[in-house]
Amino acid sequence: MRHVAQNRPFVIKNGAKDFPARKHWNATYLRTVMASENVNVAITPHGNADSIVTLPDGGALFVKPHETSQPFQSVLHKIQAQELDPTYIGPTHYAQTQNDNLRAEYTSLFADVPASIPFARIALNAEPDAMNFWLGNSHSSTALHKDNYENIYVQILGRKHFTLLPPIEAPCVHERSVLSATYTSTLDIAIDEPEQYTPFATWDPDAPESNATPYSHLSQPMQVTLDEGDVLYLPALWYHKVGQSCNEEGVCVAVNYWYDLDFAGGFWSMAGFVRNAGIISAKEEQAEKGVGKEKGV
Amino acid sequence: MRHVAQNRPFVIKNGAKDFPARKHWNATYLRTVMASENVNVAITPHGNADSIVTLPDGGALFVKPHETSQPFQSVLHKIQAQELDPTYIGPTHYAQTQNDNLRAEYTSLFADVPASIPFARIALNAEPDAMNFWLGNSHSSTALHKDNYENIYVQILGRKHFTLLPPIEAPCVHERSVLSATYTSTLDIAIDEPEQYTPFATWDPDAPESNATPYSHLSQPMQVTLDEGDVLYLPALWYHKVGQSCNEEGVCVAVNYWYDLDFAGGFWSMAGFVRNAGIISAKEEQAEKGVGKEKGV
Repeated sequence: MRHVAQNRPFVIKNGAKDFPARKHWNATYLRTVMASENVNVAITPHGNADSIVTLPDGGALFVKPHETSQPFQSVLHKIQAQELDPTYIGPTHYAQTQNDNLRAEYTSLFADVPASIPFARIALNAEPDAMNFWLGNSHSSTALHKDNYENIYVQILGRKHFTLLPPIEAPCVHERSVLSATYTSTLDIAIDEPEQYTPFATWDPDAPESNATPYSHLSQPMQVTLDEGDVLYLPALWYHKVGQSCNEEGVCVAVNYWYDLDFAGGFWSMAGFVRNAGIISAKEEQAEKGVGKEKGV
Repeated sequence: MRHVAQNRPFVIKNGAKDFPARKHWNATYLRTVMASENVNVAITPHGNADSIVTLPDGGALFVKPHETSQPFQSVLHKIQAQELDPTYIGPTHYAQTQNDNLRAEYTSLFADVPASIPFARIALNAEPDAMNFWLGNSHSSTALHKDNYENIYVQILGRKHFTLLPPIEAPCVHERSVLSATYTSTLDIAIDEPEQYTPFATWDPDAPESNATPYSHLSQPMQVTLDEGDVLYLPALWYHKVGQSCNEEGVCVAVNYWYDLDFAGGFWSMAGFVRNAGIISAKEEQAEKGVGKEKGV
């Protein structure tokens, strides 16, 4: 509860060691249990689901993956093959629906994890809003973003590599409204219709010179790696970028619990103020640069 | 603990009913117990300790009270006389040292209140940094300000009237650096030497048209009256303006517990960002007005 009050992350090393999932899950078990199931899978050319794609003309698009339903066994096979078979040619597959899929699509695996995390239920005063199952390989990454949720993230197989920025660093991440697009089944980029813009962080802490705001250089990203069995409390509104490493079977598997964030106190409004001040400041900076350019001409 | 996490105030109605202070304290008891003691007292012409005084030329000063040491019985007598005796002529006296005076100056009263508030000790994970004793009458008020403390405020005799603004409203209160001064023993205003400036809220929610920022009209002040025995949790960095009403003996008596605020999480840095954004915005507004005036000329 004190960590929630401070909005500070922590890791419980091997905190999930008693989860049945930690004892039973491996590629064979998953294949057997999910044998007859179709699941939703995100397909991208470079493992870049929900991320910014910079166009040749310098413009930017927020590109969502091609989502489709496939037999679980096929998805698992392709994820493993891309990781382990040097002759694999094809796109990157990532089962990462984030729509409470563990209680919907993956019901036969749901019994292997607790339906509720006792310390989180008490500290957050809530049951989970969603439980998600993640299956991918090292080719997939998740671009820097934040969620309006408190998050308990549990690593089951392989490792996850988090880059974390607190909400006060919102002015560093250069959030902008970016034109939305989606990968087609042939992995071309199609602009969404009707046209819509998605607010998204366009600064990448791993490429800090590009898309920087005047504040980006002040960012102090934290690096956290979750080993198998580790449990991360990722507080609401923390920006996170996530990479992954596979186990010897060529998979990376995690589950996470999302809890509603507390909108009742000052946190939500203050974080919103900071974020909006950052957005306005970056726009003004941009406008000044524009003026400078004109003068230069 | 959940209220601390939310930085939200609450009142426990008659929460101090079992304090010995609530059972024993009255003017006669205080006079008897403190008979031989000298205490620090703040003297002002209009009950305006630590507040903004606007000068005839439109300028502003942050004026501190004349502080002196007097026999407790004399202080109590003058406070009661000003309240109850229509012929009283003289300045306003307020015992309000705020330097842990209950454990220093008022040691003989200290035993009548708990040395620690159990729920606060647990929720704030700390013992009090300071315990203060307040003795005044309805002529004294405390101007809008904030403290870098978590505060448990306990009303013993009479009533206190709080006007409360959350930290997100910092851009409403028009904090400025104001030249500091002090009332002399003759209650003239003397500018402090060496010259110094105090950052202080210059907007008054009870006179909202004056000294407003572009955001002041958005403020939604809360009004809270503490009756005898009531306990207020006043969270860190909340702006508060305080007036008081006396009991039939012509006194208003309270004690409060200050606890260190938690600087470890995101709250302190986010509140600082909001406050500084407000200050910068108000300065820019002022500069634009200046430009406007020049153009007008």
